[in-house]
Amino acid sequence: MSTPSSVAATGERALIDLIRTRVPPSPPWVTLGIGDDAAVVEPEPRSLDVFTTDALVEGVHFDRAFTPPDAIGHRALAVNLSDLAAMGARPRVALLSLVLPADLLLSDLTAIVDGLLALAARHKVALVGGNITRTPGPLCIDITAVGSVHRRKFLTRSGARPGDQIWVSGHVGSAAAGLASLVSGARTAGAMTACEEAYLRPEPRIRLGLLLARNGAASACVDLSDGLADGLHQLALASEAGLVVDGQAVPVAADAREWFVAHQADPVMAAMRGGDDYELLFTVSARQRARLRSVRQTLGSLAVTRIGTVTASRTVRLKTAGGECPVPAGYEHFR
Amino acid sequence: MSTPSSVAATGERALIDLIRTRVPPSPPWVTLGIGDDAAVVEPEPRSLDVFTTDALVEGVHFDRAFTPPDAIGHRALAVNLSDLAAMGARPRVALLSLVLPADLLLSDLTAIVDGLLALAARHKVALVGGNITRTPGPLCIDITAVGSVHRRKFLTRSGARPGDQIWVSGHVGSAAAGLASLVSGARTAGAMTACEEAYLRPEPRIRLGLLLARNGAASACVDLSDGLADGLHQLALASEAGLVVDGQAVPVAADAREWFVAHQADPVMAAMRGGDDYELLFTVSARQRARLRSVRQTLGSLAVTRIGTVTASRTVRLKTAGGECPVPAGYEHFR
Repeated sequence: MSTPSSVAATGERALIDLIRTRVPPSPPWVTLGIGDDAAVVEPEPRSLDVFTTDALVEGVHFDRAFTPPDAIGHRALAVNLSDLAAMGARPRVALLSLVLPADLLLSDLTAIVDGLLALAARHKVALVGGNITRTPGPLCIDITAVGSVHRRKFLTRSGARPGDQIWVSGHVGSAAAGLASLVSGARTAGAMTACEEAYLRPEPRIRLGLLLARNGAASACVDLSDGLADGLHQLALASEAGLVVDGQAVPVAADAREWFVAHQADPVMAAMRGGDDYELLFTVSARQRARLRSVRQTLGSLAVTRIGTVTASRTVRLKTAGGECPVPAGYEHFR
Repeated sequence: MSTPSSVAATGERALIDLIRTRVPPSPPWVTLGIGDDAAVVEPEPRSLDVFTTDALVEGVHFDRAFTPPDAIGHRALAVNLSDLAAMGARPRVALLSLVLPADLLLSDLTAIVDGLLALAARHKVALVGGNITRTPGPLCIDITAVGSVHRRKFLTRSGARPGDQIWVSGHVGSAAAGLASLVSGARTAGAMTACEEAYLRPEPRIRLGLLLARNGAASACVDLSDGLADGLHQLALASEAGLVVDGQAVPVAADAREWFVAHQADPVMAAMRGGDDYELLFTVSARQRARLRSVRQTLGSLAVTRIGTVTASRTVRLKTAGGECPVPAGYEHFR
């Protein structure tokens, strides 16, 4: 089963040491990092702590056949940072819990950790602790991310009110098209590279979340980890409101649209039901519109698109050229 | 595969709702609990945050054949609270990441959650968030626990100095004997009940850790998640010191001692190498002895026992009636 370069041949302490040597020096507010029974961290002054946890399981959330190890590490952290972004939180700290099959190659583990640390470095997230255990089952990477928000300036799912505008960042459906392309192995001459990259290495919208929260430019916000359709339903449910979305406004990238059309799928429906987008879906009240303009000016290249309106009806509906229909239920990872 | 009462037949949202309804109302410092993209928590004033994460994997850390579901939930939280205890931290918050096989019964999941929540309630820990995903592999419960410590009053592994006394709480080896008894199925007339209970529902030494830290009564501290032998090595390594332990002083409970003797094992060696004790191992300098006396008076029924002395030699040795020998390496979960 195990070879000299597998994790089973290495032992827990040596694996912890391997990871510790790859972690850059801690920022000054990390009082005690990796190596003791727990990590000790100075909270951000005059702020609240924000906590989220999310696990990626091999065979459920990724397939090692087409997901390079660095992308596994990137995604495992990105899905957590995306949750912090949806709260308008600044990420600070991560804990990494690795559940490793005995035959995992050390080189793959190293690449997983490096993929995670590269994203962490870009967002100034300190890896302060974690846990390593073996498993007779699939590889599982569980991360807890901790951020900070100014008091009374965090975003929730529950603040959308009838009349608010509905906005979404970036494109939706690219990750779903990219995943489908990766699964099919049918990539032709790099045409799907951007979509595959969107699936493999999603970019958590930390800066957008921070700007929306600080400027008070959004009444509600959720990230699209399970796709736009799911995000719309979550937002409506938490806000006890209805939503109507203009299908023609839903931002589906040209390459994703082409993929869906070539595979006999309605591009907007396919994009809405696809998961793993990690964009932000947020609502903007009438008095917040000027603030959103100012956020958009600061944002730079990331597009945000208005896709609909909050209603009082308690239904979640999609307007298309052919009429109106309910937005389908989102993807549920569990089933 | 799935029956109407398995988690696969239930779906992620319904499972989250099931857990949410079992969680008691949050304390006032939980600004936002279960249900949004992340939890928002007020940090303890003038304190530092303490973070730890630990996962239990079926087939590695527990066997469902003899571990009741409530004990699985209890242990998953206890191992994390024990890490906080070793830092002298007061636990405040937990996040629960569940990786569930499709055929897990809903009734078992409910019992797991209830076992966890019962221990959480006793230590005033608020379950503020988590994640649920399915797996084709074994059940895995990953918990992140967050506590708080006064500035400059937390315990580490690295403060032991030559001449310090070495102390341990409670008994060591009971959990190992209890596990062996459970595995063998050889329980006779309830004689091993206390040891089996020590394995199934370990009591994290939160109060002892808090008292040691607040009174400045310990120079170093570590919890015995991987047994006394491992704890001694970890303490020596982190403190760059040596340790000498008096074998006759090691507190092995009478029923555990009997079990080991009946199974041809040296009771002290077996107790030291056994894992899952979750007692605290700590060192006390000459000037801290009066403070420890005051802690012991406050402690009540929990015994603490002096078992040895810190040395300058960099070796970890055991004194027995027959002479001195090195303390064996501890149990490594990974191998």
